Amino acid sequence: MILRDYHLTLRDVSDQQPEYLETVFSLANGHFGVRANDPISGNPITGTLINGFYETAPITYGEGGVGYAQKHQTILNLPDLRHLNVATNTGHRFSESTRTAVDLDLTTGTLDEQYELKTHQGETIQMAVKSVIGQNQTSFWGASYSFVAGNYAGGLLVSKAIAVPAQAEAIPSADPRKTRMAGLPVCETAFINQRLQRYHVKTRTTKQAVTAFLGMLTPNAKLLQQPLDLGDRQAHTLEYEAYVGEVGEQNTIDPAAQFMISSLSALIADSRDFWQGVWHRSEVTVGGNDELNLAIHYNIFQLNQAAGRDGRTNIAAKGLSGSGYEGHYFWDTEMYMLPYFTYTNQPMARQLLYYRYQTLPKARERAREMGVTKGALFAWRTINGEEASAYFPAGTAQYHIDADIAYAVGKYYEITRDLDFILQCGFEMVLETARFWENFGAWHQIGASSRFEFHTVTGPDEYTALVNNNYYTNRLAKHNFELIGYLANEIRQRYPNKLADFGIGPADLEKFQKLADHVYLPYSADLQINEQDDSFLSKPRWPADKSTPENFPLLLHYHPLTIYRYQVAKQADTLLADYLFPEDLSVDQLKREYDYYEGVTTHDSSLSRSIFSILAARMGDPEKAYKYFMDTARMDLVNLQKNTADGLHLANLGGSWLALVAGFSGFYVQDEVVHFANHLPKEISRLTYRMKIAASVLEIDLSADKTFVSVISGPIPTYGVSVNGDLISLAKSSSYEE
Amino acid sequence: MILRDYHLTLRDVSDQQPEYLETVFSLANGHFGVRANDPISGNPITGTLINGFYETAPITYGEGGVGYAQKHQTILNLPDLRHLNVATNTGHRFSESTRTAVDLDLTTGTLDEQYELKTHQGETIQMAVKSVIGQNQTSFWGASYSFVAGNYAGGLLVSKAIAVPAQAEAIPSADPRKTRMAGLPVCETAFINQRLQRYHVKTRTTKQAVTAFLGMLTPNAKLLQQPLDLGDRQAHTLEYEAYVGEVGEQNTIDPAAQFMISSLSALIADSRDFWQGVWHRSEVTVGGNDELNLAIHYNIFQLNQAAGRDGRTNIAAKGLSGSGYEGHYFWDTEMYMLPYFTYTNQPMARQLLYYRYQTLPKARERAREMGVTKGALFAWRTINGEEASAYFPAGTAQYHIDADIAYAVGKYYEITRDLDFILQCGFEMVLETARFWENFGAWHQIGASSRFEFHTVTGPDEYTALVNNNYYTNRLAKHNFELIGYLANEIRQRYPNKLADFGIGPADLEKFQKLADHVYLPYSADLQINEQDDSFLSKPRWPADKSTPENFPLLLHYHPLTIYRYQVAKQADTLLADYLFPEDLSVDQLKREYDYYEGVTTHDSSLSRSIFSILAARMGDPEKAYKYFMDTARMDLVNLQKNTADGLHLANLGGSWLALVAGFSGFYVQDEVVHFANHLPKEISRLTYRMKIAASVLEIDLSADKTFVSVISGPIPTYGVSVNGDLISLAKSSSYEE
Repeated sequence: MILRDYHLTLRDVSDQQPEYLETVFSLANGHFGVRANDPISGNPITGTLINGFYETAPITYGEGGVGYAQKHQTILNLPDLRHLNVATNTGHRFSESTRTAVDLDLTTGTLDEQYELKTHQGETIQMAVKSVIGQNQTSFWGASYSFVAGNYAGGLLVSKAIAVPAQAEAIPSADPRKTRMAGLPVCETAFINQRLQRYHVKTRTTKQAVTAFLGMLTPNAKLLQQPLDLGDRQAHTLEYEAYVGEVGEQNTIDPAAQFMISSLSALIADSRDFWQGVWHRSEVTVGGNDELNLAIHYNIFQLNQAAGRDGRTNIAAKGLSGSGYEGHYFWDTEMYMLPYFTYTNQPMARQLLYYRYQTLPKARERAREMGVTKGALFAWRTINGEEASAYFPAGTAQYHIDADIAYAVGKYYEITRDLDFILQCGFEMVLETARFWENFGAWHQIGASSRFEFHTVTGPDEYTALVNNNYYTNRLAKHNFELIGYLANEIRQRYPNKLADFGIGPADLEKFQKLADHVYLPYSADLQINEQDDSFLSKPRWPADKSTPENFPLLLHYHPLTIYRYQVAKQADTLLADYLFPEDLSVDQLKREYDYYEGVTTHDSSLSRSIFSILAARMGDPEKAYKYFMDTARMDLVNLQKNTADGLHLANLGGSWLALVAGFSGFYVQDEVVHFANHLPKEISRLTYRMKIAASVLEIDLSADKTFVSVISGPIPTYGVSVNGDLISLAKSSSYEE
Repeated sequence: MILRDYHLTLRDVSDQQPEYLETVFSLANGHFGVRANDPISGNPITGTLINGFYETAPITYGEGGVGYAQKHQTILNLPDLRHLNVATNTGHRFSESTRTAVDLDLTTGTLDEQYELKTHQGETIQMAVKSVIGQNQTSFWGASYSFVAGNYAGGLLVSKAIAVPAQAEAIPSADPRKTRMAGLPVCETAFINQRLQRYHVKTRTTKQAVTAFLGMLTPNAKLLQQPLDLGDRQAHTLEYEAYVGEVGEQNTIDPAAQFMISSLSALIADSRDFWQGVWHRSEVTVGGNDELNLAIHYNIFQLNQAAGRDGRTNIAAKGLSGSGYEGHYFWDTEMYMLPYFTYTNQPMARQLLYYRYQTLPKARERAREMGVTKGALFAWRTINGEEASAYFPAGTAQYHIDADIAYAVGKYYEITRDLDFILQCGFEMVLETARFWENFGAWHQIGASSRFEFHTVTGPDEYTALVNNNYYTNRLAKHNFELIGYLANEIRQRYPNKLADFGIGPADLEKFQKLADHVYLPYSADLQINEQDDSFLSKPRWPADKSTPENFPLLLHYHPLTIYRYQVAKQADTLLADYLFPEDLSVDQLKREYDYYEGVTTHDSSLSRSIFSILAARMGDPEKAYKYFMDTARMDLVNLQKNTADGLHLANLGGSWLALVAGFSGFYVQDEVVHFANHLPKEISRLTYRMKIAASVLEIDLSADKTFVSVISGPIPTYGVSVNGDLISLAKSSSYEE
């Protein structure tokens, strides 16, 4: 395994603003994240985000209504673990700092930084910081700080303590993509001894608690009592480690028992071990473009950092790299990020789906609140499973999240054959979402025929709201109905009497099949394309005089009513359904749809370009696919959306992986066959990547005229593999050459 | 003129709750209103509402957006003028009171009340209160309090002062129909002398000020110094008068100059004089049903009390009878209340339209905010002309308010020929609204033909939101386009070069005519009815299992998304357009539409039943018309909507007048002809009413087999009069007999 282009440095990112760098170089492990705050001049009271650790606050509506989401859920932005106070022994504080070099090693998860520190009096020293977060031991983070003399070479006083704000910062903002005010948790901090500080934080509203410890590892008592002496021109190093407890109702761990002082090198080894596993299963190499190669490695790295691994947490829209979108989980998980895990790390995919399962009781309640008598409606945005969207037209109205989750369960099962999961969680989710669609939709009689419709919904495109028969929603709901029949059949084959436990019988399955057969899919006979919804195509196009660059993203410049009345899409909508169901339409129709919808799409959503890339590849336009891919692959590294400071665009990170895998290599799974097709653009001389499907790690190797698929580890797969339309047989390390 | 059934008493109202009685027996004069608080046990710190006197507060959105309404505007609920402290000379306070009788005289505007007062010690006395509000001198209110002994016949101490709350009451509520928190104005109060108190209130946010004075009229110094002696078993009377200044930026009137102590009898004379004028112009007598007769008198009385007369204020949804809907003005004025004034009191109609005119600059700004480059968009709900709707799908999206205002201007001009008003205000309003529609709408090419459409709008029916081509909206916009041509022609005939002043020429007028000709009006060929909008008819009907009485009004029991996805209407929508444009459709089509839409309308809005009554009358179903009319006529007297305590339903008061006049007597004006048609139901043996059209007062007298129209005062009208389809000629006091 050759590991190149696995180092992200300051030269690789377009922006050098501190808030931007904090996001881009953040470390995380699914449990918590540490933004790369400047340890000297950064804000000491924010920078640590714990997955699923949040406060609630009542949502205030200018004019409220029945069934509106009641509470904001806001991830807490907790004090920075990296912060450090450094002063000369004459009391001059090093208050200014310049980050002169950074190296994030994606193979080990180690972050190396160089700073130049300066006092008001002009004294300078150099500081090197090496930090790492535990990946198997996910409660740990550690850092070493090394100092060498600059123009100052005297005694140095270093102290480190978790700063506790008087009260949590309130950040009101008119930009809905940013986070809103944080809650006001109760914080306590105390030094257990000179080397060890305890920090206890307890939320006021959600009754969660976390205990953290920050301790000095270097077991040299002398260091605690007298200044470092830089006069010898040697590097003087101090090591610290932090333990961040799990989220619980009462988290009051005994430090002696729990806070095991180890060493930074042990933590680095732990992290390296984890990342080796990741790269073994999912290494991607893009030949011919080092920049791109690095970008895709970075994206995979951050996807792995962000994903909650404990079944109680999920992947926030910004991961653990920032508090944008309040740390909420959206449909992005299932449709943009989960595929990476489903095809490289099935146990993680299972955990992410399990998170949804444990919110199912709340989803059932929500369906009742929304006037639907059976089934479950998952929250559009949430941490705890309750709906937290304060703007229902682009929140709760995106009912498609139900079918998205069902789709993801189906995809997971398709490749894992994990019937245990289906019996324990998956079937219930697919059944309850199918029941929701059944009771939410309505039969519409037109002449002699009748069709099943869904009214007043919002599809993925948030620039078009409250419409009837959104193609994407209807297509996914149709799949939801079909999936319940498929899974029921899988269960029945193994456990003939099991279905009764779920309260369904043959009549129910017939009913779902009938619904699936009759779900209405709007189609324009005129344009010979699928219609985004019943009225989309009849609206006027977004006017030219509102199309100059400063008008974008539209949501920051126009009232929703203004946007909604035009035929303009924020992102892939009907095309997203086309991507998911390649069998639905001919390449000719796909081309027509693509041309049409591309003309009305602004890509104001970071979820858009990856899908346009995939479909361009599929329809034989690799140059266009490459263009879109380049924007997705490097979106955060070039700060394309100009808000990376609030956190990474996780869905797009997943999307960029999809663009490579589902786009350039034509990957999809259907009917137990794994398909590949070579759609490489001329700019990419070679694409090699790995997947783990079932117990086998596959390596796919594409170049202009060759497509190899080989088994790197694990058994020979039992599923079929198709390359460019031909079924091939895989032997261990065998390959197929076009 | 015979005046019967002009007295409203406690026996005439269904509810005896204090808050309800406060509303129903409130007195007002367009400038301010005095709720009928119990003077002894009522809340002393609220009860006085001054038209257009309000505070603002930032609107907080759970998730805000560009162009959202920024500020709540909330009418102030100011201290009660009626409150009184009464105690025995031994210091026992009369703290309990029972309202034993009330008589509101609708011919004089005098309110007579009887109370029994009681101390904690069980001492009782009787108190009579007579109060009246100045109708020509609109700054005045006065009351006399008369006391006679009960089981207590000793000395009585009476004091009266305006109570100033520590801070204004905050009333958060989940019911959007109620008012929200009031602002916190600055109040000062001081006694100028023993008989005269000054009360000064200055708003914090809007920089308005009002100075009020409350003084004792009885010029007997002895009364101020010693107790009343009830021992003589005579009535002892104290008279008070209040002066409520105009709303201004600085309202610091010198009391000596401004507060003219008059007498209660002079105030009663002033009020009587006003009401005589009202009844002369607009008396209505419904034969055969005293209850109904009283109800319609009451409704007309309250309409006149509520309407702002100064051109700077309008008619709040609850008038000045309560603070519901925050004292905001809606489209209700133009479509439900203004017709009464247009046809009985043209100077008042002009003032109400002038109010809109002075908000035109803000309406222009609002159009820009909503992405429309020309024209003006009037605020959906407002006091000061700025949009104050915090829920845009049922607020700003009701763009039809623009066309409603234009329609009202047209109706005013049609009957007054007041070209001065058109030149000064009216034409500009109609032009700016037409320009709005032009730039808001869009051409839609279908095959060879093209039509002009309006997308993502909400019609009058608030249970159906953000739809395309709402019939009502489109029909009114079409009229708006036609009206500009009509008015331009009227101007050109008198002032051939005047149009250039408005920046329009023949090409513009041609363009507007073309738009009028092409506005799309959705029609179902299948059902042969006009369609409420492009998708209404294709949605499922509201389900039976959600239709039991406790589920209504739906808005208090279901999430908007749940309501919106069904084919269910809160109120008349397409039928409202049918009512406005009788020439649009045959009686057969009207019947089909009526039957259809009646089946899907809940009448959860108080604006619904009057229109259903009018159309039932028009289509020859007087019994149904009568049934709906009875609900509208007595809506507040029977507390039908169960929220009269928050204020009267002013639009419905106007609607009940329309139901009589436009319904049972088939009144409408078209092409300078005033039409009447006899649609009396059998329950009404005779209907007589007056109108003032141009300078003439007409009396219309309908009974089962006769229809008379006569000129009561003023010249013989120059416009045509048609009865039951035949043009008649009117001589003074002449009549037409069927």
